[in-house]
Amino acid sequence: MTRHITILPGDGIGPEVTKEARRLLEEVAQTLGETWTLEEALIGGAAYDQTGHPLPPETIAKCKASDAVLLGAVGGPKWDHLPGDVRPEAGLLGIRKQLGVFANLRPIRTWPGLLLASPLKPELLDGVDMVIVRELTGGLYFGEPKQRLDGGNAVVDTLHYTRHEIERVVRQAFEIAQNRRKKVTSVDKANVLESSRMWREIVQETAAAFPDVTVEPILVDSAAMQLIQRPNQFDVVVTENMFGDILSDEAAVLTGSIGMLPSASLGSGGPGLYEPVHGSAPDIAGQGIANPLAGFLSVAMLLRHSLGLEAAATAIEDAVLATIEAGHRTRDLAGHDSEPVGTEEMSALVRHEV
Amino acid sequence: MTRHITILPGDGIGPEVTKEARRLLEEVAQTLGETWTLEEALIGGAAYDQTGHPLPPETIAKCKASDAVLLGAVGGPKWDHLPGDVRPEAGLLGIRKQLGVFANLRPIRTWPGLLLASPLKPELLDGVDMVIVRELTGGLYFGEPKQRLDGGNAVVDTLHYTRHEIERVVRQAFEIAQNRRKKVTSVDKANVLESSRMWREIVQETAAAFPDVTVEPILVDSAAMQLIQRPNQFDVVVTENMFGDILSDEAAVLTGSIGMLPSASLGSGGPGLYEPVHGSAPDIAGQGIANPLAGFLSVAMLLRHSLGLEAAATAIEDAVLATIEAGHRTRDLAGHDSEPVGTEEMSALVRHEV
Ligand SMILES: CC(C)[C@H](C(=O)O)[C@@H](O)C(=O)O
Ligand SMILES: CC(C)[C@H](C(=O)O)[C@@H](O)C(=O)O
Repeated sequence: MTRHITILPGDGIGPEVTKEARRLLEEVAQTLGETWTLEEALIGGAAYDQTGHPLPPETIAKCKASDAVLLGAVGGPKWDHLPGDVRPEAGLLGIRKQLGVFANLRPIRTWPGLLLASPLKPELLDGVDMVIVRELTGGLYFGEPKQRLDGGNAVVDTLHYTRHEIERVVRQAFEIAQNRRKKVTSVDKANVLESSRMWREIVQETAAAFPDVTVEPILVDSAAMQLIQRPNQFDVVVTENMFGDILSDEAAVLTGSIGMLPSASLGSGGPGLYEPVHGSAPDIAGQGIANPLAGFLSVAMLLRHSLGLEAAATAIEDAVLATIEAGHRTRDLAGHDSEPVGTEEMSALVRHEV
Repeated sequence: MTRHITILPGDGIGPEVTKEARRLLEEVAQTLGETWTLEEALIGGAAYDQTGHPLPPETIAKCKASDAVLLGAVGGPKWDHLPGDVRPEAGLLGIRKQLGVFANLRPIRTWPGLLLASPLKPELLDGVDMVIVRELTGGLYFGEPKQRLDGGNAVVDTLHYTRHEIERVVRQAFEIAQNRRKKVTSVDKANVLESSRMWREIVQETAAAFPDVTVEPILVDSAAMQLIQRPNQFDVVVTENMFGDILSDEAAVLTGSIGMLPSASLGSGGPGLYEPVHGSAPDIAGQGIANPLAGFLSVAMLLRHSLGLEAAATAIEDAVLATIEAGHRTRDLAGHDSEPVGTEEMSALVRHEV
């Protein structure tokens, strides 16, 4: 079977971590006796430097013709002075919109052996295992108008949703919960926002079709507190694009291992987009010390959600777990007493286990 | 000298904690040999029950005619089914808007002796002492349109700011920083929102007038992470209304003592609005166990910012500190080994120290 995967290395540590992810993908294909095409394309600052745009048309075309897309990271101080529409982030927002990947899934769990790296007291981390489902192609990110007004004396951004946009992501969250602990926490600001009141209504309507799933609506400010106070109460958390951006990053640091967090962005039918949660980390780019495991776990999600290769996905996740349990750590995870391994070495250790 | 203070007890534990705050105010006035009028007025669910509206016109009139307003808390499950415009929260948003209190100040610090109650590891709490300055009368909370569209098939909320609205709150933050550690962290989402790009420009312009203050713009998702990872890096944090709602609640739980957090909402010239950060806590209302200290510390802010009584404000803060250091704890702060004191007893203990 031939599978087409597009790899978008991007900026900073993106190329280093996708290089290892590519090796992993090649080995999985070989093991399965399949021929996969793994093609690279430009995005972000790297694309801007070569083409003047962070998301060239060829990249869009390649991605749309793929079974799945694996992205490294975009952005860096080099491009911070650029106007908004050609900044690296515009490439990322653009590819999400182009692929229609409306549901961003971020699983967050504790790793035994990595609890020490967490800012939280260890007893709070027991059993933390949640998936944040963030709406990714609507809301405050994309609504119009988004512009200066009144000769530059005022400004507006717009939080806009259609019923359909809310329904599909909420339904996705319920479906995920059915295969997990069967609890959906929907985060909104229904005491202030009209969009949140509609969101809450749709959650209640959707819940009727999932009688085995418990649903709890909570306010975003309360969610920001409870993520820290009692993170293990959450199973599936579903929320608006901007709320999801803030809360998923908050949740990402709870376990102390943001270098271990993958994400999947899914639409209806087209290719999924997979990327590590960590950013481009320009401060450590090119040093060979970046943690490749968020990229590996993103590959696992890609195999599961876009290629239907559940066994291969689980094999990667188990290999990551085994390697961590064996005590190997990249610099971001290492305590003061252990000698950290580099990107390539960690990659080799895990691939050896798969 | 005659001072007019309006007290808005509100709902849940609001009446209990404002009752103790009132006692404190009476004693301060007596000590100073002044005559203060302390008048109560209705707000929130209590106002709705008696008048059909969460913010009756008499309340607005009384507040506007005061030197300062002290609020307990609003809201509770009893009123959750009501339409948005008559819910208790509408009373709170309404009085903020009516008083024009555009800058919400939330000081967050660690209390020696209360570190155990924090979800964070103690070493991260060392030196945590910040003020969050949240824009309070604009942004996503108040922008129009805020309504259903397309026969209920879509919905919109609006993040709108005038230049003037951003300038005045940013300036306020810089002024506060000048009297502290001289660092302003401005939180925005400039890689996505046009309003954030304008916010960032105004921060840079304002910074020019405060050469002794360092300014650091950071993204809201990064702020959500850094508040947990390194909370002691922050001095003054200034941000948009909705971002401020989320981040200030996140920050509020870091120290483990949300029952100790006061807030002040200030405008230009008119009365300030002072309230504990904790909510109406309907689950413990009427039991006499609520922590009155956030209310007391709100009184201290009232004395400082609206009445210019710095010495009296400090005396209250010192008394709170001494009482905590002496080991007295309300139930929310108590460890498993100490016998908690009730609302009235804690109030008496602190007032005895003032
Ligand atoms: C880079 C930025 C535009 C992006 C976002 O806000 O969505 C990032 O923070 C993320 O969460 O993937
Ligand atoms: C009750 C609610 C409307 C209010 C807000 O969102 O401003 C509260 O959360 C707060 O922070 O004071």
